[in-house]
Amino acid sequence: MRLSRYFLPVLKETPADAQIASHRLMLRAGMMRQESAGIYAWLPLGHRVLQKISQIVREEQDRAGAVELLMPTIQSADLWRESNRYDAYGKEMLRITDRHDREMLYGPTNEEMITEIFRAYCRSYKDVPKLLYHIQWKFRDEIRPRFGVMRGREFLMKDTYSFDLDEASARAAYNKMFIAYLNTFARLGLKAVPMRADTGPIGGDLSHEFIILAETGESEVFCHSDLVEMAAPGDVDFEGDLQHLVDQRTALYAATEEMHEAARFEAEVPEAKRLSARGIEVGHIFYFGTKYSDAMKAEVTHPDGSSRPVHMGSYGIGVSRLVGGIIEASHDENGIIWPESVAPFGVGIVNLKAGDTDTDAACAKAYDALTAAGKEPLLDDTNERPGGKFATMDLIGLPYQLVIGPRGLKEGKAEVKIRKTGERHELSLDDAIARLAEGAFSNG
Amino acid sequence: MRLSRYFLPVLKETPADAQIASHRLMLRAGMMRQESAGIYAWLPLGHRVLQKISQIVREEQDRAGAVELLMPTIQSADLWRESNRYDAYGKEMLRITDRHDREMLYGPTNEEMITEIFRAYCRSYKDVPKLLYHIQWKFRDEIRPRFGVMRGREFLMKDTYSFDLDEASARAAYNKMFIAYLNTFARLGLKAVPMRADTGPIGGDLSHEFIILAETGESEVFCHSDLVEMAAPGDVDFEGDLQHLVDQRTALYAATEEMHEAARFEAEVPEAKRLSARGIEVGHIFYFGTKYSDAMKAEVTHPDGSSRPVHMGSYGIGVSRLVGGIIEASHDENGIIWPESVAPFGVGIVNLKAGDTDTDAACAKAYDALTAAGKEPLLDDTNERPGGKFATMDLIGLPYQLVIGPRGLKEGKAEVKIRKTGERHELSLDDAIARLAEGAFSNG
Repeated sequence: MRLSRYFLPVLKETPADAQIASHRLMLRAGMMRQESAGIYAWLPLGHRVLQKISQIVREEQDRAGAVELLMPTIQSADLWRESNRYDAYGKEMLRITDRHDREMLYGPTNEEMITEIFRAYCRSYKDVPKLLYHIQWKFRDEIRPRFGVMRGREFLMKDTYSFDLDEASARAAYNKMFIAYLNTFARLGLKAVPMRADTGPIGGDLSHEFIILAETGESEVFCHSDLVEMAAPGDVDFEGDLQHLVDQRTALYAATEEMHEAARFEAEVPEAKRLSARGIEVGHIFYFGTKYSDAMKAEVTHPDGSSRPVHMGSYGIGVSRLVGGIIEASHDENGIIWPESVAPFGVGIVNLKAGDTDTDAACAKAYDALTAAGKEPLLDDTNERPGGKFATMDLIGLPYQLVIGPRGLKEGKAEVKIRKTGERHELSLDDAIARLAEGAFSNG
Repeated sequence: MRLSRYFLPVLKETPADAQIASHRLMLRAGMMRQESAGIYAWLPLGHRVLQKISQIVREEQDRAGAVELLMPTIQSADLWRESNRYDAYGKEMLRITDRHDREMLYGPTNEEMITEIFRAYCRSYKDVPKLLYHIQWKFRDEIRPRFGVMRGREFLMKDTYSFDLDEASARAAYNKMFIAYLNTFARLGLKAVPMRADTGPIGGDLSHEFIILAETGESEVFCHSDLVEMAAPGDVDFEGDLQHLVDQRTALYAATEEMHEAARFEAEVPEAKRLSARGIEVGHIFYFGTKYSDAMKAEVTHPDGSSRPVHMGSYGIGVSRLVGGIIEASHDENGIIWPESVAPFGVGIVNLKAGDTDTDAACAKAYDALTAAGKEPLLDDTNERPGGKFATMDLIGLPYQLVIGPRGLKEGKAEVKIRKTGERHELSLDDAIARLAEGAFSNG
């Protein structure tokens, strides 16, 4: 992409009402714009990151055997009356009356609707297990939306639902998502720790939150510090037994504030390994048995002829919230530092003298070569001064910058800057292009 | 994908309330489920088609130089008061009151919001032209939703907006979208004819609808028959002058019912070339000058120092409606016939005797080879009888079927069926796999 044809409205000033780094940086980097309280338009740069995160989440769901569908945003109130959550949900539910005076709502989650879909088609033990997910916008009418996308009202979420014959099979589905989540967050460049958690309004008796540590985290968390550095499981057989991989993690103490037991923490974790920190929830998984299938009569016949409610779980990842979460975990005083996997562009090319024939040609050459190599470069071909261009590149946080100007070119040189470390390499233009194209500077 | 792990709830009976082929077939093929009047869940098969169409639309927008962003579904009423459309829009607008009694709405279109975004950041002639689009769910509270996704209430739309300094530049943007639309529909396997159209509630003085011909079309259309077979422009320079390509089409008579002039039609079109048929609108483009920029004060300073409203256009493609439109244009009595570009899976593999070791092994070999070749096979590895499997494959309309059974395998044979023509080829299994992998049966 050439910046002259793009839409990147970076802000010079720090927005006054943004209290945390991710909110400030997303506004300053022209990633989003608030349209109403807690409702944001994703400007082109932000949208690219949102798409990249969604795609990684999708790939890891598919790998675990989940099947994607897409449920609508608007649901009928009657569906929620079946589970008795329509009245219980309170003011966070955005309630709507349509032109025929039917009561509708903007879905805050989809347990009811997916259960309705399941029961419409699946009647037999042969129809399970099922593991279904979608990535869709949700709405929760937060009383005080704040912290940008971290606590917005309209937000993008991936939610998966499992349907199983019995608890053992349901726990296998739970384990699949547990492992898939570890792999997902690792690919996003995050160290996410699974922690025993309260089940809240979803209900059920088994639940883990996946928490990333950040100073601006919304709640206090407590865990064995080994959990933070434990590598993700990676390529596993999702049809095999995953219990030992789950047990490796759950054997070590980790709990959110609501579930924390100070005495157990001290008893189980050596003092040097006791970590208490602020955390941001980026995923939450639940096994809730027959809570919804009972209420909504989602039953299947067993091999013995009896008809019983299916065992269910639900598994959420806050996709739009992750954009903020990644920034909270990875930024400095100059701006965002994107992990390569979700960077909106792979390389930023800075033309130090747009309009100068040789510099323009060198930039075009680099742009074409890096595009062909799949590096999705962003070329700053505008007339802004070098200082402004450098500041913008640091602010938007692309992993690499390739700086090309007439002075360097006279000696056949260009400069590569690694955003994360600040390292600079002076190289011949061809070497710089070749090394960026092959990912030679990459450290993940 | 293995069918045993998928979720494909095909229906044996024809749903009674579905009046047109696409609605019937989408329900029967397990592509979608109605959740409320005019509101559908996209089941896995339908979701795959929706994603493929979205991606083609996106690629052709990008090629034309449009930049993607994503605006939220929920908008504030105040925004629509600025353009005086809040009261004018009537009952088709889904109006919402949030917990703080703020008036909101579910966006039926986005002229107001994109104008607000533009004016917040763009003040100078240097900031234009801008060509921005998003692919987002919209809601129109139709009084009588019907025909499945053809006239639903919650629907997916691609809408592009152009901002230009003057009318000449705005017309260049209009031409870009005109050409991009022709290429988009051609890639979707559709013959879409641009027709002069009424501007309706969007306003403005230049507008074309893109219409595909189908017996179940919602309105009568009239055109020179050469337009139907005219090839799409294909690879053009979108920064160059596209007027001649547009003129080639607009020189020939084509008009929707509202714009039809019988006398002109007869005068301009030789009798043998006069086509009057039913048509389905799949795209609509508008140039409306300063209608919104005037009302909402979206002005830029010109080089002469004066400040004037920008010239705007908007350009829509009904993405979810296209799923139905493609089916209306391409089906037979046995089911859907997907164009290869949007087929949910590239090849269906029919295992005639699941559980038979040799047949299972041959199917697995074909599945792996076709997966590796990027053909996205769907393997029917269920225990259903052959007749049921054949009917399902025809119904869901994958372009090719590879039929593998013990009897054929004894002679080393498998059968390839071309869905569109019904042609069958008996080949050695290896040949069948190799030819499917290389696209040897392809005819677009």
